[in-house]
Amino acid sequence: MEQFRNIGIIGRLGSIQVLNTVHRLKKFLLTRHLCVILEDNIAEILPGHGLQTSSRKMLGEVCDMVIVVGGDGSLLDAARALVQHNVPVLGINRGSLGFLTDILPNDLEVEVAKVLDGYYLVGNRFLLQVEVCRYGEAIGHGDALNDVVLHPGKSTRMIEFELYIDEQFVCSQKADGLIVATPTGSTAYALSAGGPIMHPKLDAIVIVPMYPHMLSSRPIVVDGNSELKIVVSKDMHIYPQTSCDGQNHFSCAPGDTITVSKKAQQLQLIHPLDHNYYEVCRTKLGWGSSLESKCD
Amino acid sequence: MEQFRNIGIIGRLGSIQVLNTVHRLKKFLLTRHLCVILEDNIAEILPGHGLQTSSRKMLGEVCDMVIVVGGDGSLLDAARALVQHNVPVLGINRGSLGFLTDILPNDLEVEVAKVLDGYYLVGNRFLLQVEVCRYGEAIGHGDALNDVVLHPGKSTRMIEFELYIDEQFVCSQKADGLIVATPTGSTAYALSAGGPIMHPKLDAIVIVPMYPHMLSSRPIVVDGNSELKIVVSKDMHIYPQTSCDGQNHFSCAPGDTITVSKKAQQLQLIHPLDHNYYEVCRTKLGWGSSLESKCD
Amino acid sequence: MEQFRNIGIIGRLGSIQVLNTVHRLKKFLLTRHLCVILEDNIAEILPGHGLQTSSRKMLGEVCDMVIVVGGDGSLLDAARALVQHNVPVLGINRGSLGFLTDILPNDLEVEVAKVLDGYYLVGNRFLLQVEVCRYGEAIGHGDALNDVVLHPGKSTRMIEFELYIDEQFVCSQKADGLIVATPTGSTAYALSAGGPIMHPKLDAIVIVPMYPHMLSSRPIVVDGNSELKIVVSKDMHIYPQTSCDGQNHFSCAPGDTITVSKKAQQLQLIHPLDHNYYEVCRTKLGWGSSLESKCD
Amino acid sequence: MEQFRNIGIIGRLGSIQVLNTVHRLKKFLLTRHLCVILEDNIAEILPGHGLQTSSRKMLGEVCDMVIVVGGDGSLLDAARALVQHNVPVLGINRGSLGFLTDILPNDLEVEVAKVLDGYYLVGNRFLLQVEVCRYGEAIGHGDALNDVVLHPGKSTRMIEFELYIDEQFVCSQKADGLIVATPTGSTAYALSAGGPIMHPKLDAIVIVPMYPHMLSSRPIVVDGNSELKIVVSKDMHIYPQTSCDGQNHFSCAPGDTITVSKKAQQLQLIHPLDHNYYEVCRTKLGWGSSLESKCD
Repeated sequence: MEQFRNIGIIGRLGSIQVLNTVHRLKKFLLTRHLCVILEDNIAEILPGHGLQTSSRKMLGEVCDMVIVVGGDGSLLDAARALVQHNVPVLGINRGSLGFLTDILPNDLEVEVAKVLDGYYLVGNRFLLQVEVCRYGEAIGHGDALNDVVLHPGKSTRMIEFELYIDEQFVCSQKADGLIVATPTGSTAYALSAGGPIMHPKLDAIVIVPMYPHMLSSRPIVVDGNSELKIVVSKDMHIYPQTSCDGQNHFSCAPGDTITVSKKAQQLQLIHPLDHNYYEVCRTKLGWGSSLESKCD
Repeated sequence: MEQFRNIGIIGRLGSIQVLNTVHRLKKFLLTRHLCVILEDNIAEILPGHGLQTSSRKMLGEVCDMVIVVGGDGSLLDAARALVQHNVPVLGINRGSLGFLTDILPNDLEVEVAKVLDGYYLVGNRFLLQVEVCRYGEAIGHGDALNDVVLHPGKSTRMIEFELYIDEQFVCSQKADGLIVATPTGSTAYALSAGGPIMHPKLDAIVIVPMYPHMLSSRPIVVDGNSELKIVVSKDMHIYPQTSCDGQNHFSCAPGDTITVSKKAQQLQLIHPLDHNYYEVCRTKLGWGSSLESKCD
Repeated sequence: MEQFRNIGIIGRLGSIQVLNTVHRLKKFLLTRHLCVILEDNIAEILPGHGLQTSSRKMLGEVCDMVIVVGGDGSLLDAARALVQHNVPVLGINRGSLGFLTDILPNDLEVEVAKVLDGYYLVGNRFLLQVEVCRYGEAIGHGDALNDVVLHPGKSTRMIEFELYIDEQFVCSQKADGLIVATPTGSTAYALSAGGPIMHPKLDAIVIVPMYPHMLSSRPIVVDGNSELKIVVSKDMHIYPQTSCDGQNHFSCAPGDTITVSKKAQQLQLIHPLDHNYYEVCRTKLGWGSSLESKCD
Repeated sequence: MEQFRNIGIIGRLGSIQVLNTVHRLKKFLLTRHLCVILEDNIAEILPGHGLQTSSRKMLGEVCDMVIVVGGDGSLLDAARALVQHNVPVLGINRGSLGFLTDILPNDLEVEVAKVLDGYYLVGNRFLLQVEVCRYGEAIGHGDALNDVVLHPGKSTRMIEFELYIDEQFVCSQKADGLIVATPTGSTAYALSAGGPIMHPKLDAIVIVPMYPHMLSSRPIVVDGNSELKIVVSKDMHIYPQTSCDGQNHFSCAPGDTITVSKKAQQLQLIHPLDHNYYEVCRTKLGWGSSLESKCD
């Protein structure tokens, strides 16, 4: 008896290659006599698929595993929608980076078969939950697998804010913004901004100031169970934005408080047995290119 | 009944101000009818002190608390000697930085009294233990509260080495060296080298490459229970050094393996009740100085 | 006979302190029997001033020197308006930073007197001129004393662009944006973004990528006479903005070319005789705060 | 009539591949009926070569061009020896990096022929000259094409020093050291240390602090004609070293003054006509590897 009977498929829209891979994946899963359920959006552009379809949210309830065909962006998107249902997620890489989507399209039959046969690893990835409060009332909520970013929105002026960690005042800053990232997000935007790489198993959050005016400002790594509070300064007429994974956005106002903490539910990310985090780093971050010996 | 009856005192040598503070501290402790034990070295230059004396190592066995008068360097030194005895350590700042030595000399009666009366916090700080192996045999051991640093020693040539974390190959590097730091050490040398600030409660280790030739190399933060292995390349005629807290040094040879992991025993660092880590950061790292608004 | 007979005054709006300083400055200049001309905007909120007034542009034509009361932002603004008239500019600092505005309000009589008496230095500061072209036609022009910045505007998506210097292809980049700064601007936004400090006498331009996806990307310093061309990628539906000194903005479109080069006219910035660039750096950049000795 | 009649050859020792390339180069030059002169050291290990030989220094006097077979290190070494003779230098790359050695060994006949036929570019590269003074007396001199580096030598303690530029005090620093680099050296050690890339045509010097304790310290770029003075603090018992191109070293003492300025003579570096500096950057610095889109 197989552990994974009902398999959901989500695919990034707008790419023929994704469609081809979804098609090939579906065919393969049917040869294994599994129940395949397509997410609505991708189903619409696959006429004659003859499968059950479901909204993204419902996929989480009815599936034993969801396979995402796309890049890291597609997986981030799916993760936020599926996390509360505790359904394992597997990624097939049809994007450009692929820190989260391990399987290459051409290997899908071999690699997905191994997973179906029980040969796989599960990595738990925690998400951040963010709440924006105005006059003490919550006006927005969101989840992020990679990062929560406070940025000026359309303004080009810096933001002024105060940072508190576990009720302790840390500092007030003038900066372009602030990135709060999970270990998963530490190799994404936070890395470009000068943050460290954090191993996915680390229970920690990194806070990376964006172009701070204070030259001695540095990234801060705190325990994953910390609660962060960012208070947008009342004194400036700036209406910054808070973004989750660079995909969902809230508008903030002077005086708003943005609270960021670990979400209770975690994403179960499925990896092949031979998955090696540092190998992914070496490949994706170009650790092969070396500035070689300065003098030979 | 007091918790702390036998109080050891360690003082940095070579400073009159330290001697004065040790003298004042001793006087204060005697008014509290406590048993004061001087470390040998400082005792020698305090003639007529009329107190018990002890080697640094023995202090750990016979004392309920050891007070260090000096800077962070003195405390690092004492911590490595005392850690196996599980004795709490308190620092009185007579150095220039003072991330670890909380109490100002002028406040010593008031502040030490509070500690003796039971009003204090204990922060557990983990140490790193390092072992250097040649042909499979251990040729050197050391402990570090701040950091273990692999550096070229007197050579000016870069070092070539391979890094493994928990038996997984991470990368091979050509660099000036490598810093492996605890959260305690994250605000010391590692910070100058581009590492993040890590809150002392975080159970993590940061690995900071020193001037790596690979421009895409970045600091890596891993779980505190990770085991790191650095293998010095056999191909170069470089004899690098491994330093603990910048104070103890081992010579290494091509092919040597340096293993770094968390030490079982932890340092119990005593803080005043109003101790605030971020306030120390703000003060010591100059977070007050801001590059202000770029356009007013 | 005095060199400076007709003195223009520009003041930042919205600050009582600026008004007070303008008033005090005007009084002092009149005691020297000089012809004082107020810029329109500040004149409006100084009723009963009894002076000539002029538009900002005309000030440049009729004055022998223009004194700006405000911060660096006010001086940047004035510099761009006045540069074509070759009129020397002096700044009195009523802002928060003051890299460009040397004189403290309380010293104005003493310090301005020295300048009027011929005891001063003139520093020539070059500006950048920027032209945005669409389908080969110029659709926007601007000048910048500090920097020209390409940024995503209200979008949060990265920009893709190609960079050419003196007709040579340099690289294509995916980044949050690009900063092109003069030596004057090297201590402003470019510094927060990781650019070097460039001495004002240096004839050079620095190009600083903003959070580039390519981890090996670095700031590039080129000769001040170089012509830079930034071509916004046609493939992305991004409408980035180009900003001059963070004050004037143009909207760009996919395929647009942004050309940046040195402007023919230079700003003549007046400094007191004892002006010392590195002292300004030490004060403004907080070079006093030191992370002190890691081991004492 | 050919411009280049007497051709010197210098080769890196210790590599069979270099010997093979030197042999092939010699053969080719002889087919062109040129006078080939071997540098002493390489001549010794090429028995039966039947050519004139010369010391490295003399090569500069008697040759119209010197060809260096090796890596950037070999070319740096040759450049310092030859610069006073004003002889053009061409590099054939047998090292790992090759920012300075343009020609690939396999292309040598084709590419060297073009140069001999007059199809080439000459890039003038300035060198730094360094003088170490003790009690007002010069105790050491050196030249550097890449960089002058002040570093702790075998000590692991930071160095304390004061920096002056054109007689103006810049700052006092506690750091691991200081790098002073030419544009040529800006892509070598200085780049690893956080300095900017400087185009070879730029007449500028960059000063890069090494792991400064002052977190607001930044690289500084000054005019190429500036005179730098580094004064080693008298207060610390540190005997740092000054290195030229990481190859020649002087020992310094507390109180010593190290003066660095542009050398009058410049190196004439020969490039193929299709040489493109930014293409070299793209290749050598791995600008192809991109951290791609953070969300697809």
